[in-house]
Amino acid sequence: MSPVRVNGLACKAAKEVVVEDFYFSGLHVAGNTTNKQGSAVTAVNVAQIGGLNTMGVSLVRIDYAPFGLNPPHTHPRSTEILTVLEGCLHVGFVTSNPENKHFEKVLNKGDVFVFPKGLIHYQYNNRTTGAVAIAALSSQNPGVITIANAVFGAEPSIPAGITTKAFQVEKSTVDSIQAQF
Amino acid sequence: MSPVRVNGLACKAAKEVVVEDFYFSGLHVAGNTTNKQGSAVTAVNVAQIGGLNTMGVSLVRIDYAPFGLNPPHTHPRSTEILTVLEGCLHVGFVTSNPENKHFEKVLNKGDVFVFPKGLIHYQYNNRTTGAVAIAALSSQNPGVITIANAVFGAEPSIPAGITTKAFQVEKSTVDSIQAQF
Amino acid sequence: MSPVRVNGLACKAAKEVVVEDFYFSGLHVAGNTTNKQGSAVTAVNVAQIGGLNTMGVSLVRIDYAPFGLNPPHTHPRSTEILTVLEGCLHVGFVTSNPENKHFEKVLNKGDVFVFPKGLIHYQYNNRTTGAVAIAALSSQNPGVITIANAVFGAEPSIPAGITTKAFQVEKSTVDSIQAQF
Amino acid sequence: MSPVRVNGLACKAAKEVVVEDFYFSGLHVAGNTTNKQGSAVTAVNVAQIGGLNTMGVSLVRIDYAPFGLNPPHTHPRSTEILTVLEGCLHVGFVTSNPENKHFEKVLNKGDVFVFPKGLIHYQYNNRTTGAVAIAALSSQNPGVITIANAVFGAEPSIPAGITTKAFQVEKSTVDSIQAQF
Amino acid sequence: MSPVRVNGLACKAAKEVVVEDFYFSGLHVAGNTTNKQGSAVTAVNVAQIGGLNTMGVSLVRIDYAPFGLNPPHTHPRSTEILTVLEGCLHVGFVTSNPENKHFEKVLNKGDVFVFPKGLIHYQYNNRTTGAVAIAALSSQNPGVITIANAVFGAEPSIPAGITTKAFQVEKSTVDSIQAQF
Amino acid sequence: MSPVRVNGLACKAAKEVVVEDFYFSGLHVAGNTTNKQGSAVTAVNVAQIGGLNTMGVSLVRIDYAPFGLNPPHTHPRSTEILTVLEGCLHVGFVTSNPENKHFEKVLNKGDVFVFPKGLIHYQYNNRTTGAVAIAALSSQNPGVITIANAVFGAEPSIPAGITTKAFQVEKSTVDSIQAQF
Repeated sequence: MSPVRVNGLACKAAKEVVVEDFYFSGLHVAGNTTNKQGSAVTAVNVAQIGGLNTMGVSLVRIDYAPFGLNPPHTHPRSTEILTVLEGCLHVGFVTSNPENKHFEKVLNKGDVFVFPKGLIHYQYNNRTTGAVAIAALSSQNPGVITIANAVFGAEPSIPAGITTKAFQVEKSTVDSIQAQF
Repeated sequence: MSPVRVNGLACKAAKEVVVEDFYFSGLHVAGNTTNKQGSAVTAVNVAQIGGLNTMGVSLVRIDYAPFGLNPPHTHPRSTEILTVLEGCLHVGFVTSNPENKHFEKVLNKGDVFVFPKGLIHYQYNNRTTGAVAIAALSSQNPGVITIANAVFGAEPSIPAGITTKAFQVEKSTVDSIQAQF
Repeated sequence: MSPVRVNGLACKAAKEVVVEDFYFSGLHVAGNTTNKQGSAVTAVNVAQIGGLNTMGVSLVRIDYAPFGLNPPHTHPRSTEILTVLEGCLHVGFVTSNPENKHFEKVLNKGDVFVFPKGLIHYQYNNRTTGAVAIAALSSQNPGVITIANAVFGAEPSIPAGITTKAFQVEKSTVDSIQAQF
Repeated sequence: MSPVRVNGLACKAAKEVVVEDFYFSGLHVAGNTTNKQGSAVTAVNVAQIGGLNTMGVSLVRIDYAPFGLNPPHTHPRSTEILTVLEGCLHVGFVTSNPENKHFEKVLNKGDVFVFPKGLIHYQYNNRTTGAVAIAALSSQNPGVITIANAVFGAEPSIPAGITTKAFQVEKSTVDSIQAQF
Repeated sequence: MSPVRVNGLACKAAKEVVVEDFYFSGLHVAGNTTNKQGSAVTAVNVAQIGGLNTMGVSLVRIDYAPFGLNPPHTHPRSTEILTVLEGCLHVGFVTSNPENKHFEKVLNKGDVFVFPKGLIHYQYNNRTTGAVAIAALSSQNPGVITIANAVFGAEPSIPAGITTKAFQVEKSTVDSIQAQF
Repeated sequence: MSPVRVNGLACKAAKEVVVEDFYFSGLHVAGNTTNKQGSAVTAVNVAQIGGLNTMGVSLVRIDYAPFGLNPPHTHPRSTEILTVLEGCLHVGFVTSNPENKHFEKVLNKGDVFVFPKGLIHYQYNNRTTGAVAIAALSSQNPGVITIANAVFGAEPSIPAGITTKAFQVEKSTVDSIQAQF
């Protein structure tokens, strides 16, 4: 890969392109959900398939353990459209200021839902059995910002004076949240 | 829906938007493949989910009967990324002039493949059992041009003098192909 | 204003355009910072100046009381470039997963800082005197998602089962945060 | 030319740019139409004029022998607008599924016609004298996919099982068409 | 035509589209060059062909009397690529600050030249015989700003205090120039 | 900086990015207005802040001496939105052909005005005290074409036969104007 980057990756010369540049294997394999959130995202974007460069689309598989959560997050460069392959998901997104209107829906197998570009959204499996979804994103490099990780797990930390004021909590609360991320 | 169209659809006023504007149900249902090609495409784009307007992404489910074919076609406004849910597919695309290079691959369950924007591509199930795929497209209104239908099934017909010359065949061959579409 | 919306606003006919369609008055007036965060944003975007429609840029003035905070937020459709007119600001943004790298800087009068598209960022006035900034955004309709308001102040609320898991806190903590927003 | 490619070409440093980077000579010369289709396209795009890089437009000259055909093709990244300099052309395009509506028109000298982005289109000279057209494309690198060449002349060949099913013809017909491309 | 405008025109419903929406007649007719500049531009853009809406390309024919000039101008939304059909043209463009580098070239029949997006450019016929060119623009609605007309022929006039200072001339010079436009 | 350019600059590898890549200092410092026009533009775009690359926005500070003028100019790739920090400015822009309509306004402290993409515009301080403005542009690399400099100060010069005809003036007038630039 060339060290030159133009908001991402440089393309190969046309003659060097091979069929494997458009191929990825393994999206049928469940991700490992033995983590605090009980979910796992397997991404297939330009990092996995070089031929997606400049193509404006990518895929993810998301696995959810029982009561697993894909926690509130945004994609800074992408809309998402998701369909449930197995199980049942409680999903939602919140609109921007000043409304902060919460749109939520319970999805069953075969249901499709759209999370508009840049909005905070989540999927929650509130059942005792697992769930699986496939989602598409409107960028070959959509990015993911998990809200809790970005706010409370940033490196170096966001100063406590800022997070306590932003969330209107005590420093001890911020400390205990930061200890989790 | 407003009669005004701006390369597609006009948006609703924000206050009138409801959660159903981001929702579609039924992608778990197999399409009817009892047709000449033995395949069926179930689309979930801006025509099914109004909230996809201007969002730059959509989904399709594709069902393949044994030996079913999603015949050579293009999306005039979209790249496609496909993953196999069930079965096995022989897929390919052809690059533009002058190379007309054919990239092809046999995909198994969980494999992912990219069909670059605007190129002719196909999926063929050369097995005795059915197959299912989910694909994402980089437009909320990607369009589909099935080559055989557009060339031999256009209404009104493309004059035989043009198709015979273009494909270097006898008029009787064009007539018999047109009779199929 | 026409009821037709295309991801925003419809334009006036050219003959009806007047100079006021490109004009706004009052950005020299300090916003009211007597609120919990101690900051106020005065926006000048397509909602204030109709002539900005489709033009891809807008302005804001931000006022900060002593120890005032423009709390962590994102712009779903925009990069931001900010310059300090008065006072001193501690600013920062956090990159996306998996790094969640925190870039921070203390800005003085005349300093300029960039918050890349879609990333969570903040400005904090950690002094005993007020501060003022002007910022530009790369959209006529950038949108603002204040993290705490969207997550803990959404209407209707995001279920506590989701926020407790996402932030790894007790329900009582979520309840007390939600009571603030 | 740099080996780095970003969906095409990398730009020169500004200081190295010379007037020849914006110049091409020879569009007054008729192309050689002594081929099976009786037409010739002389392209002036970013491959001929480096200064067109990122500029979003290019030109072609098309020569037609008597009864010459510019056979059905698409531009995967471009709309086309054509004007007839000499002679008379029967032109048309076909819309996407499910309509496959055929728009056609006979053009005389000075007539202008638009072939919308990504749609299959053609020009046919059904006269005993030659014809000449100039066309513009909405990309500096529009690409050309000649349908017959891509489907029946791909290298390696698309398997006969696919083309026979797609066009609903016998294998012998496919074999005889493939022999022409 | 709908009164709603979205930076231009609203599209017709698909069913109402007719072949004439993609057609214009008359580009073989010479424009009337009996004016002070000795040139005439015949435009074929979205105002003449509704089907060009959102398509990103348009055409012009330019006629030049002997010693005719298409005076320095810009297209605020477009690159231009021009080819000479008849005669000989001295063409040029000037780069932006601080270089203001002048690229110029003498073009003969069949030569092609590119005027990059937004730069001031001109074509001059310094011969005793007429000339004709066809040019393509990278927008369906490129706009034209003739420098002299916009600066000295604006309605109402730009105050003389501004133009005298800008061009470092006496008010009498500005007055005499303004009298021409 | 890499020598590879893609209509501008190549990005750094993510790991090498530092906070200074998003930072500039000095916009509080008045520019030197002791020049013929009595104005000074201090730009903060991708040339000053590398992290602005591909971000679609930039800032400028403009200082005006008493009776200072930011003379008629265009930004080939950008809209501008300006706010007055100190003093009073007479501003305006002119629309494209054929109207060449002049929109003008007197701005006081805190007023905001929009100069639409690609149009000729100016700001004039017709007071005996200085003025200061901050403006944002809808590109990280907007470019500036000062009309007088581009037309009369190009290197090499635009031939006098062209400028005399374009502005309908004597060669001596052109000569005296060119001597100023």
